[in-house]
Amino acid sequence: MIRPSGLQAEESRRALGRLFAPIQAGLAEAERIFQEELKSRQPFVQALVDHCGDYQGKRLRPALVLLTGGACGRIDDAHPVLAAVVEMIHTATLVHDDVLDESLVRRHAATVNAEWGNEPAVMLGDYLFSHSYHLAASLDSTLACRWIGKATHEVCEGEMMQLHHRGNLDLDEATYTQIIAGKTAALTAVSCRLGAHHAGAEAAVVAEMEAYGYHVGMAFQIADDVLDIWGDERATGKSLGTDLEKQKLTLPIIRLLEIGEPAAVDEARRLLQGARADSRRRLQPLLEESGALDYAWSQARAHVERAVSALDIVPASPYKEVLAEMAEYVLRRSS
Amino acid sequence: MIRPSGLQAEESRRALGRLFAPIQAGLAEAERIFQEELKSRQPFVQALVDHCGDYQGKRLRPALVLLTGGACGRIDDAHPVLAAVVEMIHTATLVHDDVLDESLVRRHAATVNAEWGNEPAVMLGDYLFSHSYHLAASLDSTLACRWIGKATHEVCEGEMMQLHHRGNLDLDEATYTQIIAGKTAALTAVSCRLGAHHAGAEAAVVAEMEAYGYHVGMAFQIADDVLDIWGDERATGKSLGTDLEKQKLTLPIIRLLEIGEPAAVDEARRLLQGARADSRRRLQPLLEESGALDYAWSQARAHVERAVSALDIVPASPYKEVLAEMAEYVLRRSS
Repeated sequence: MIRPSGLQAEESRRALGRLFAPIQAGLAEAERIFQEELKSRQPFVQALVDHCGDYQGKRLRPALVLLTGGACGRIDDAHPVLAAVVEMIHTATLVHDDVLDESLVRRHAATVNAEWGNEPAVMLGDYLFSHSYHLAASLDSTLACRWIGKATHEVCEGEMMQLHHRGNLDLDEATYTQIIAGKTAALTAVSCRLGAHHAGAEAAVVAEMEAYGYHVGMAFQIADDVLDIWGDERATGKSLGTDLEKQKLTLPIIRLLEIGEPAAVDEARRLLQGARADSRRRLQPLLEESGALDYAWSQARAHVERAVSALDIVPASPYKEVLAEMAEYVLRRSS
Repeated sequence: MIRPSGLQAEESRRALGRLFAPIQAGLAEAERIFQEELKSRQPFVQALVDHCGDYQGKRLRPALVLLTGGACGRIDDAHPVLAAVVEMIHTATLVHDDVLDESLVRRHAATVNAEWGNEPAVMLGDYLFSHSYHLAASLDSTLACRWIGKATHEVCEGEMMQLHHRGNLDLDEATYTQIIAGKTAALTAVSCRLGAHHAGAEAAVVAEMEAYGYHVGMAFQIADDVLDIWGDERATGKSLGTDLEKQKLTLPIIRLLEIGEPAAVDEARRLLQGARADSRRRLQPLLEESGALDYAWSQARAHVERAVSALDIVPASPYKEVLAEMAEYVLRRSS
């Protein structure tokens, strides 16, 4: 059976640190811009901003902006700005997601909603969104705002579809694909699109880089959904099993309900409707025995392969190598 | 005693319809753009969008964009786009405000949170925000995105400060002023700034139009706070008394606590802490007798006067006349 190798958080962090060596300076600059843009004279607002600054974990999206820029031949002043913009949008969605999911822990710390309540968390997310557009509008053209606006409303559409289908045990794989294409892949895709475009790449190259970002995002989300069932809370540093609690159907579950033996399907439906504390543990063998876990994993793997083959359009470079490794990393990570 | 003349909703609507006659075409075009931009292929998302489309009531902010454009000599194609953008931002803040305030009714209809729950309401607000920037980025320059980004984060900062000071019976007038300058006046100010700038007005004129928008916004919010205590729920079409329930101190209350007789102050503090169902009714005589209501009203009146005097910089025109009347209308409205 293929499943996450279970890299632990520390190993995972080190692996990324090594991978991101060629873009260290760009990431540091993006971080500086992120902090600078969000500064508030209001101590209460600053405390909220500082708290969610700690949410920044893997910095995958800023890395995608910088790496695709490098792979397309140029990392210039716009890249760290765009890297900060996409990280700000991503952080805003995390803050609002935690409100939606009633999550209490993220990156080993209390979420904003757990610490201050839902209202400041909703407003903090809005504050991050508006700052990200303000920052994106500091660039020469309206293109970044336009593309990011589009990606962000795709994210929201994906989230709203997911909410709409909560508790729908008949959710099919095509709809699931649409949901995660919006809620996750839209932002990784636009990160790569922006990185390539701002390196002066021609349209065909920009499109392939966008495809790379899309497939990495899809693989990442499927892996995330698998981790929500198999992960270790200590390693991931966040609440797990929330998909089950919230009756959000993910790929392994959808597959089990589609192809499982009748008895297994009945048992799974009962567990999903009940949302019991031990649902996770009891679903695991059903998902493994039915081949549903393998299936989800093979779909994630297929996205990784399509991501890697999209890289064919750019010449060999250390950046291209890192992009290829990042796609693989998505399946190895444990957090 | 000076107080709202109590125009009823229907009169109020007619009064605005008459006022806005010179910009009818622009408002209709803004409305078309608003609907077009928000279209979704997802029926669930479209249902949410359609519902909040009904929130659009007075269209004060789009009217400000168009009227300042006209008063500065030109309403061109950018104006209805910007009018739709500011209305979208405003609608997003209403949707999120209703989540924050747990409001159940707006414009005589159930709020999104009341009808579908908080989660879709949070996402719908985000969807409106991202579309507004997407739309703003369809214009020639990044300026609109930049200014609107700044105004929106001022709105959020104002809201976060207000949340932070909830239940703080020692809130002073200066802090209250900062809060409403952010949560309300930032968006009316930027509406006028954009309208004037896109009419090709020179910097000094743009600054005065922005000042007009700022003072109209301040007057509007103070009047709104007064209506929350004195208004008629049937006329306003929304839940009232929410400021008291949520222990948000507004100008009449702040003034009462500052200058009231000790017995009145004690009684007011007790009512504010208890948040009883009849708090509104019992606070009214205290606010009237202490002169706190008159004071709040005189502050609103002063903002209206400063708004009107900011109009001196533009030549006489039907648009200028409407802007002057709108400033006055802010104090006459009952909803």
